[in-house]
Amino acid sequence: MRARAPASAANLGPGFDVLALALNLSVEVDVEPASRLSVRCEGEGADLADDASHLAARVAIDVAGHDRLAITVRSDIPVARGLGSSAALAVAAAAAAGSRDPLGVAARIDGHPDNAAASVVGGLVGATMVKGSVRAVRLPLDPGLVFVVVVPERPLATSKARQALPQQVSRADATFNLGRMALLLAGLADRALLTKEAAEDRLHQDYRSPMFPEAPQLLARLGAAGALASCWSGAGPSLLGICDAGSGERVRDGAEAALAEVGVAGRAMVLLPDLEGLVVDGAPGFVGRTRSPSAPFDLLADG
Amino acid sequence: MRARAPASAANLGPGFDVLALALNLSVEVDVEPASRLSVRCEGEGADLADDASHLAARVAIDVAGHDRLAITVRSDIPVARGLGSSAALAVAAAAAAGSRDPLGVAARIDGHPDNAAASVVGGLVGATMVKGSVRAVRLPLDPGLVFVVVVPERPLATSKARQALPQQVSRADATFNLGRMALLLAGLADRALLTKEAAEDRLHQDYRSPMFPEAPQLLARLGAAGALASCWSGAGPSLLGICDAGSGERVRDGAEAALAEVGVAGRAMVLLPDLEGLVVDGAPGFVGRTRSPSAPFDLLADG
Repeated sequence: MRARAPASAANLGPGFDVLALALNLSVEVDVEPASRLSVRCEGEGADLADDASHLAARVAIDVAGHDRLAITVRSDIPVARGLGSSAALAVAAAAAAGSRDPLGVAARIDGHPDNAAASVVGGLVGATMVKGSVRAVRLPLDPGLVFVVVVPERPLATSKARQALPQQVSRADATFNLGRMALLLAGLADRALLTKEAAEDRLHQDYRSPMFPEAPQLLARLGAAGALASCWSGAGPSLLGICDAGSGERVRDGAEAALAEVGVAGRAMVLLPDLEGLVVDGAPGFVGRTRSPSAPFDLLADG
Repeated sequence: MRARAPASAANLGPGFDVLALALNLSVEVDVEPASRLSVRCEGEGADLADDASHLAARVAIDVAGHDRLAITVRSDIPVARGLGSSAALAVAAAAAAGSRDPLGVAARIDGHPDNAAASVVGGLVGATMVKGSVRAVRLPLDPGLVFVVVVPERPLATSKARQALPQQVSRADATFNLGRMALLLAGLADRALLTKEAAEDRLHQDYRSPMFPEAPQLLARLGAAGALASCWSGAGPSLLGICDAGSGERVRDGAEAALAEVGVAGRAMVLLPDLEGLVVDGAPGFVGRTRSPSAPFDLLADG
């Protein structure tokens, strides 16, 4: 079977570990019966080990219960940049190997449900664990928004980025993020309400900045170039500018100029939200329920 | 002038200090020029001091800049029960005294913007401080929801309830509330998605339970009687059951039976959301902008 899943930007501003947005880069995985394991990779991540240690192989073997599989991976999602490449790959590999619960599989392997939920559901999602299972809701997203993603040419492993975070935070910081998240959700639903304060955060970004000291300056430059708001993507180092559709290219150009000025190798691109999420053999790959296209979407995975 | 403002339930579940809901109990304040200060009160709170120390007098004098005012207060909002009576009174008194920024005045006096924002805007709001000013957004609310409010006959001062809260919380608890808030906002927008986990909280309710030991049991009984979710209202002691319109009366009856069983004097009532917010001399009392009736509502107060 063939399955495709989009990239995602998680930890959106104040929505640490919860809010994620599917973006139109994707990974496609084919899994077919074979006499022995083979892993073939094209595109981003093609330099990773093409044996049983490859994430796609581990997931597919786990789902299939054996390793007599021919696996092909084609990806345009940069690896280890905070764009959810692991979660998207795990989701697509699980689905292509026949899993009926690719979200549960991916969340278990990836450890955090937000990227995986965005890769399955598409669009803007809020995801969290409830009694050991992923619970995700689709949240409204203004169709007039585009996203400028700044991708530095330096990896930043999620596990290392997470170690930088304190175990205790002040109650004031916790409520700060709750308040900003309300503003951000309103602003992502209606971009006329989106202001830069809506993406402010006190739970993760500042703690991670020492690993990417140019980040605050680049975030400010995204705003100066016209982004309505800006934040880290996932655990970084990619950064996200949330933009009016009409200003995406201007913001991208500003971001590339800023990268050059601060001396960080990398690129910037204008991405659209991916509203399809997981696609399996050409059909939507999730089971959920929704009442209308604009209504919140509900998804329960038995992980 | 005459102004009316609704009651509100703040600190909704995970939305500590942020999410508040206007409810259809209200306070009405008349402020007229007079030769000297008089304060006349009817209804709830009529036993409070009727002199310059009354909150309505303090607010009106602050706004008017003098005390030659005849003030009349009529209220059906229980006082010191976690239903935002102070914020509603401050909002209505400020507006009736001619303030152009009743939200800013009330938030400054009340200290927290969520109740005041709900009393001004109406409906479901997210409110927080941005650079010293209140910023509030109206969030979508399913019209098929009603709210059963359980009002114990014991006051619980907000200041005391707040002292019970720790200054530090774990990062896990902070992100727990962010995740639950995403679920709650989706569930309040579409009640088909609302589950009891959406109202779970780790930042305030459990810390306050020692001041109201019967609260967890009463919350559970609201659920058993048919509430979709339940939480404290404000700093308590009132409790809120979020219900399908069709089950409001059954949940109210169940709540009254539960009060009797656990031996807490009090009452339960079915309330509707107040969607008007502040009304001044018969007209909407706020200045804001909204793009469509279903779109999030934006309000910026220069406090």
